[in-house]
Amino acid sequence: MKFFSSLFLTAAVLPLIQAGKPKNYIFVLPDGYGPASEVFARDFASYKNNGSITLPVDDLAIGYVRTKASDTLVTDSAAAATAYACGIKTYNGAIGVDDDYQPCGTILEAAKLEGYMTGLVVTSRITHASPAGFASHTYFRDLESDIAEQLVGYSHPLGRVVDVIMGGGRCFFLPKSDPGSCRKDELDLWSIARDDIGWDVATSREEFDDLRNGDSESKRNFPFMFLPTLDHMSYEADRDSQDEPSLTEMTETALEWLHRETKHSDKGFFLFVEASRIDHAGHAHDPIGHLHDILEYNRAMNTMKQFIDDHPDTALLSAADHECGGLTLGVPDYAWYPEVLAKAKHTTSHYLRRYEQFMETNGNYTQQDLFSFLAEMVFAPYGILNPTKEELRGIFNADSMSIYLGEVLSARAGINWSTLGHTAVDVTLFGYGKNTEKMAGSFENIDVNKFMRDQLNLSLVEVTQVLQANTTWVKSIGPNEEGEMLVKRYQLAHDHEHSINGHDH
Amino acid sequence: MKFFSSLFLTAAVLPLIQAGKPKNYIFVLPDGYGPASEVFARDFASYKNNGSITLPVDDLAIGYVRTKASDTLVTDSAAAATAYACGIKTYNGAIGVDDDYQPCGTILEAAKLEGYMTGLVVTSRITHASPAGFASHTYFRDLESDIAEQLVGYSHPLGRVVDVIMGGGRCFFLPKSDPGSCRKDELDLWSIARDDIGWDVATSREEFDDLRNGDSESKRNFPFMFLPTLDHMSYEADRDSQDEPSLTEMTETALEWLHRETKHSDKGFFLFVEASRIDHAGHAHDPIGHLHDILEYNRAMNTMKQFIDDHPDTALLSAADHECGGLTLGVPDYAWYPEVLAKAKHTTSHYLRRYEQFMETNGNYTQQDLFSFLAEMVFAPYGILNPTKEELRGIFNADSMSIYLGEVLSARAGINWSTLGHTAVDVTLFGYGKNTEKMAGSFENIDVNKFMRDQLNLSLVEVTQVLQANTTWVKSIGPNEEGEMLVKRYQLAHDHEHSINGHDH
Repeated sequence: MKFFSSLFLTAAVLPLIQAGKPKNYIFVLPDGYGPASEVFARDFASYKNNGSITLPVDDLAIGYVRTKASDTLVTDSAAAATAYACGIKTYNGAIGVDDDYQPCGTILEAAKLEGYMTGLVVTSRITHASPAGFASHTYFRDLESDIAEQLVGYSHPLGRVVDVIMGGGRCFFLPKSDPGSCRKDELDLWSIARDDIGWDVATSREEFDDLRNGDSESKRNFPFMFLPTLDHMSYEADRDSQDEPSLTEMTETALEWLHRETKHSDKGFFLFVEASRIDHAGHAHDPIGHLHDILEYNRAMNTMKQFIDDHPDTALLSAADHECGGLTLGVPDYAWYPEVLAKAKHTTSHYLRRYEQFMETNGNYTQQDLFSFLAEMVFAPYGILNPTKEELRGIFNADSMSIYLGEVLSARAGINWSTLGHTAVDVTLFGYGKNTEKMAGSFENIDVNKFMRDQLNLSLVEVTQVLQANTTWVKSIGPNEEGEMLVKRYQLAHDHEHSINGHDH
Repeated sequence: MKFFSSLFLTAAVLPLIQAGKPKNYIFVLPDGYGPASEVFARDFASYKNNGSITLPVDDLAIGYVRTKASDTLVTDSAAAATAYACGIKTYNGAIGVDDDYQPCGTILEAAKLEGYMTGLVVTSRITHASPAGFASHTYFRDLESDIAEQLVGYSHPLGRVVDVIMGGGRCFFLPKSDPGSCRKDELDLWSIARDDIGWDVATSREEFDDLRNGDSESKRNFPFMFLPTLDHMSYEADRDSQDEPSLTEMTETALEWLHRETKHSDKGFFLFVEASRIDHAGHAHDPIGHLHDILEYNRAMNTMKQFIDDHPDTALLSAADHECGGLTLGVPDYAWYPEVLAKAKHTTSHYLRRYEQFMETNGNYTQQDLFSFLAEMVFAPYGILNPTKEELRGIFNADSMSIYLGEVLSARAGINWSTLGHTAVDVTLFGYGKNTEKMAGSFENIDVNKFMRDQLNLSLVEVTQVLQANTTWVKSIGPNEEGEMLVKRYQLAHDHEHSINGHDH
C-alpha cells in the first residue's frame, strides 16, 4: 500500500504539485535589518523625494520572523544563518552544526545534491557567518580559514557545493606569506581552488564585467568565484564603482548566469543573497552606513522582483537574521530629522581612516591644526556642520572615535542606538513570487527553511546523514576540547554583562 | 437613472455585497505597543510556561502600519486616533479635527448615524486622546472637560453618539466643588448625563456585575456609562478585582450587550477597545506595567477572537497608535532575562505611592530607616532583590524616582528604554474575521480606517458635512487665538529638544 501510494504520487500527482511550485528560489538576508531600519530608510527616501514614498520592500512585506537562538533570546548571525539554512535552532556561534556540534545539511547543499545550481552573493567576507552557515560546518564562526576551505570544496565532504561565489574576504584564501593574508598557515587556497578544483576566479571590476556582459561567448566559466576585496566589500556609501560592483549588480549578474545555465534543465537554482553590512553599521552606530546599505538592499530587492516578474518560475523570501544596534527613531521626543543625514558623504569608517592618515603624516600638528582638521575634514563632510567645541572635544574621551562620530550625527538627527550588539525584536518577512502568500503571518526563522525546502521539494535528511557519516570530519569540525567550546559559548553570549551589578539569573 | 441604480443596488446587489462583509466591527488599540513589546511579553510568557509559546496576537498578525502624523514623523495618540477614526493625517494633539481645525466625521459617528450601536471600552480616562478621537472634536487633547461634554452628547452637535462607555476618568464629569473633580467649572456632567440625556451610570464593581450578568431581565439599560475610577483605571498588575473589572471582562460584557441589542437588526455595532496603559508604562520605563497590560491585551484579544468564532458576522482589526519608550531587548548584549521580571508584584506607580506614604507618616526616620524601608518595601517587592548600595542611593539623584526604579529592574533584565516619548517605528496590524486577510501587508494608519468603513459600507462624507455645518460649534472647537495653538503644537512636537546642541533643521 505504501509502495502503491508512493508510486501513485510520483506518477500522477507529483507533476501537478510541482507545477504549482517555483523552480528557483532566492533567499535574501539583510543582516541586522530591524523594523526601525525600514522606517528609517523610508523616511529618508521620502525626504529626498519631497513627499511620502514607500520602499520597494514595503510592498513585499508578508509577515514576521521570530529569531531566538537555542541558548539565548538574542541570536547572532551564525545561529540565525544555521536556522535559515538547516531549519534547526542552535547556539550562538554555530556554523551549520547543532547543539551537539553535529553538522546539519543545508538547503543549499541539498539543492546541489539534487542537481540544482547554487550561489552565494554577499558584501561581507564570504567566510562571514551568514554565507558560511549555508555551505560550511564548524563549531565556531571565527574559524574562517576552515570555512574558506569548505566553501570552495577543498575540505567539504560533499566536495564543491557552490557554483557562484561573490563577495569580500579574499584574505582567507591567501597563504600566510602573502601580505594580504588572514590565514595562519601557508595553504594557497586561491590557487588550489583555481588549479585543482576548477574555479574560474576573479578579483577585478573588469573581470566582473566580463561575466556581467557574458553571453554564450562569455570569457568566464562556472564555477565562478569573484572576491574583489581582501576584507569585507565597502559600505555602499564608500564604494568606488571603479573597483567594486554593487550588491544589485552582483545579484543581477548571478541571476542572469544561473538562469542561463539552468533554463533548459528541470532543476533550477538556489541563490543566497546577503546585504551584509547593514549589520556592521548598526554595531558601529553609524546611521550613514546603515542607511545607504539599506537603500542598496532595496535596489537589489527591486531587481530580484523584476527578475521574478520576467521569470515566474522563481520565488524569493527575505528576512533579517536579527535587529542590530537598538535603533530608535525619535529621541529624545516626538520627532526625528532625516534631512540631517543628507549632508554626509561617507561612513564613519571612511573618516576614521582619514583621521588615522592625518595622525600618521602630521607629526608636529598643533591642537589648532587637529581641531581644524577634525572640523573640516571629518565632522563637516560626515554631516556634522559647525560642530560645537563640546562635540569636537568629546571625540578624545570616546572609547571608539568612529562610534562617537556616529552618535553625534545620530543625536542631531533625533535617533538613538541603545546597544552595540543585536536585539530580540522580531524581523519582517518579505516575499515575492509563487506561493509566498502562504508565509503571511508570524513564523520562527526555522519555518522559513521548512517552507523553502518544501517549495523546492527538498529534504535535508539525506544530506545530513551523508555529512554525519564522515566521522573523521565530524570530529574535526567540533571543538578540540569541550572546555574551549563552553568558554567560547559563554563569552559570546555574555560578553558585555560586566556592567550590570547584582545580576541574579 | 441615479434613482434606478440606487434602487437596483438596494434591491438586488446590496444584500449580496453585505453577505460578504461583516455586520459588526471591533477596532482594538493597544496604545504604545511596539514590535519589541510583543517579543518582550512572548518571551516572558514562554519563561513562565517553561518552553516556547506564542501570544494570542502572534497568530493574528497580518501586516504592519505606518504611523506618522501630518506635522512630524513621530505621532502622538491624538493624531493617531484621528487617523484611525477619520482616515486623515493630522497634527499631534488634534482630536477629531484636521490641520485647519475643522472637525472630521469618525467611523463611530457615521456608524451611529446609520443605525449601528457603538461603544468605547478603555482603561485610561475615557477623555484621553485615543477614545476621544473616535467621538469628539477639539483642537487640543488636553481639553478633557470639553471632550467629556461631547462624549455623553451634552455638547456634541450630533447629540449622543456612543451607547456604551467603560473606562476611567470620572473626574471630568464632576463639578469643581466635588473633591474628586478635575473640572474648572461647576458643570455636573454626571447628573446631566443621567437625568437629562438618559445615561444609565455606574461606578462600582457590583453595578458592573449587574450588567455582566444581565439577561433580558437585566437591571441596566442603554446607554450605559461605567466609570469606576476618577483618573485612569489601574494598571493590570495593580488592579484590585474587587474594585475594578479587567479589560477582558469589560470587553466581554460590552460585546454580549451590543450583540444582544443588535442581533435582530440588520445593523450591527462598532466597538472601540483600548488597552490604554501599555503606553503609560512605556513612558514611565516600567517593564512590569508594560508587561502585564500587554498580557491583559492578549487575553482580551483572545476573548474577542472567541466571540468572532461564535459570531462570524463580526470582524476585528487591531494596531497600536505608535511605539512608546524605545524598548530594546538585549542590552548591553546578546541576552535578556525575562525571569528577572517574574519577581515583581506591582508597578513602579504602586511603589512610588508606598514611598510617598512612608515619607508622610514617618517624620523622624533615620537614614538607616529609609534605606531599610526602600530595600524591603520598594526594591525587593518590585523584584530588585538584594539591591546594591549604588542601586539604592541612585534613587535620590534621579529626576524621577519611579522611572529610576523601572530602569534599575530593566537593567537587571537586560532591557533598555531609550526615550520618554514615542518612536516612529511601524506597528503590527492584527486581524481576525471575514475579509481581514485583505489587509495583509504594509499600510498607512489611515488605510485601516478606509478598510473598516468599506467593510461596514459607511461613508464619512455626510457626517463630516453635518459636523462642519454647525459653524458656531466648529469655531468653538478651534483655538481661541491662532498663536495659542501654534505654541501648543510647537511645544508638543519639540518639548524635549533642549538637550541637542547645534541642531540645524
